[in-house]
Amino acid sequence: MTQTMDNLCWIAADWGTSHLRLWLMDDQGTVLRHIGSDRGMSSLAPQEFEPTLIDLIGDSLPDQGSIPVVCCGMAGSRQGWAEAPYSKAPCEPPSIDQATRVQTADPRISVFLLPGIKQLPAADVMRGEETQIAGFLSENPKFDGVICLPGTHCKWAHISAGEVVSFRTFMTGELFALLCDASVLRHSVGDDGWDAAAFEAAVSDAMSRPSAVAGNLFSIRAETLLCDLDSAAARSRISGLLIGIELAAARPYWLGQDVVVVGESGIATAYSAGLSQQGAMARNVTAANMTLNGLRAAYTKLIETTP
Amino acid sequence: MTQTMDNLCWIAADWGTSHLRLWLMDDQGTVLRHIGSDRGMSSLAPQEFEPTLIDLIGDSLPDQGSIPVVCCGMAGSRQGWAEAPYSKAPCEPPSIDQATRVQTADPRISVFLLPGIKQLPAADVMRGEETQIAGFLSENPKFDGVICLPGTHCKWAHISAGEVVSFRTFMTGELFALLCDASVLRHSVGDDGWDAAAFEAAVSDAMSRPSAVAGNLFSIRAETLLCDLDSAAARSRISGLLIGIELAAARPYWLGQDVVVVGESGIATAYSAGLSQQGAMARNVTAANMTLNGLRAAYTKLIETTP
Repeated sequence: MTQTMDNLCWIAADWGTSHLRLWLMDDQGTVLRHIGSDRGMSSLAPQEFEPTLIDLIGDSLPDQGSIPVVCCGMAGSRQGWAEAPYSKAPCEPPSIDQATRVQTADPRISVFLLPGIKQLPAADVMRGEETQIAGFLSENPKFDGVICLPGTHCKWAHISAGEVVSFRTFMTGELFALLCDASVLRHSVGDDGWDAAAFEAAVSDAMSRPSAVAGNLFSIRAETLLCDLDSAAARSRISGLLIGIELAAARPYWLGQDVVVVGESGIATAYSAGLSQQGAMARNVTAANMTLNGLRAAYTKLIETTP
Repeated sequence: MTQTMDNLCWIAADWGTSHLRLWLMDDQGTVLRHIGSDRGMSSLAPQEFEPTLIDLIGDSLPDQGSIPVVCCGMAGSRQGWAEAPYSKAPCEPPSIDQATRVQTADPRISVFLLPGIKQLPAADVMRGEETQIAGFLSENPKFDGVICLPGTHCKWAHISAGEVVSFRTFMTGELFALLCDASVLRHSVGDDGWDAAAFEAAVSDAMSRPSAVAGNLFSIRAETLLCDLDSAAARSRISGLLIGIELAAARPYWLGQDVVVVGESGIATAYSAGLSQQGAMARNVTAANMTLNGLRAAYTKLIETTP
């Protein structure tokens, strides 16, 4: 059993579709403890969010007072804990002023759900990535350029004067997972291994002939059957074809821009490699750090504005 | 219990990945009985094919003599009953001369596995569709043009002088099923309903901007969230985007060609509608008929060549 943390000051929460990440923070912004859980939004009914949270951090809460929990991600969606209505682009990444307060049965927590951002027309949405953008901007307040956030649904966001000016989402990561895990190509790919040359050739091919992608994907199956195609090459080609057509469509976002890729190492490296092939140099920063920084920025605003 | 069929002459079998279809035939080419089963290739080990077949048709077999079973599809793949090595394009659709004989424990059947077709370079494979092509050519021996066979993996085949000259496979059908059943878009689509205008607009959009498809797919999700997009429109748009990029890539196959679409009604109609939007008129023929006709053509050759 965990003991009450006397120096616990607030809790940062990234509550996504499939995962929950919590950081227990002191008043200096230091992480006292990090907790990861697979109790993501999609596995929970609205009334299950509070018990899930208390189950994970209840023992650490002091008996007196109320600990702020600043939460981003899908917990704020309509099917989540409570709906935190989207901010509308162009806008600053939403912070504590736009957060939705949730009433809790347990008086030891005060929950703030940060909203996502919507865009209309060119209908688009994000929930969670806006907090990574806020985290990046907290360290780079003068940034003017493009932030690329690869993942299940990759986002490209134009940033200027501290605002998300416009953004565009691509289903690249989800398509990659479906093709590797659930399609006929699952017989072709390995779990790991990377073939940089195969990736690079596939990016070039997809960028110059984007329409051919559904045919070029099946070629991977045929080459496995007829030519014993290596499994690392197969996986790298699927990645290259999908990232290639995305880069072709996202050209207005990266061409001649200052580009930052926010993501975990493998996928961020693939995007940077694809961009560098096109002569676009991108910086990489780690997604988890950016999320925590964004939640820190929201908490700072909370204590600044609390009388 | 089914009685022995005195007039049973031969059996036509289409043994695919997920389904098995059998037609019990008399000596006039008339179907005595049709049997459908979900015991497809992917659910069977090699030694289970014969018992599966006997289980379904054993009671109908005469005690004396041996009934030819002419079989096309994935049963002839390396993971199937026995490997029927591919014919190599350019070639006529393989027939009984290229079939692989399987030794059976039950003397009442004589099994012939028809091979598929491979192509190298531009690695590609088909197994099953070649028999549909043979079936179409048995009724249209002078056909010179292109046969499009939509399905899980859509095939486009150039046909000239009775031969499959070249072909190209697209993963369109499998992508559509994965997106509608397993991706975030499953929340957007309905089980049925069709919006012809949404389909048409999506085909045009994908043909003019094929690289944008991964972004345009996510727009469907965003419009569901923000604009209450109708579920029939969502499903039709996914279909239109995927068929649109395929038609863009397959242009050399259909532009200025005599095109025949072989498929079940819904999907064949969608392809024909997409083609007609581009000013290409296609004829539709039913896939099941073509398969049976192709198997009939192989059986006819068998009895012609048997002394």
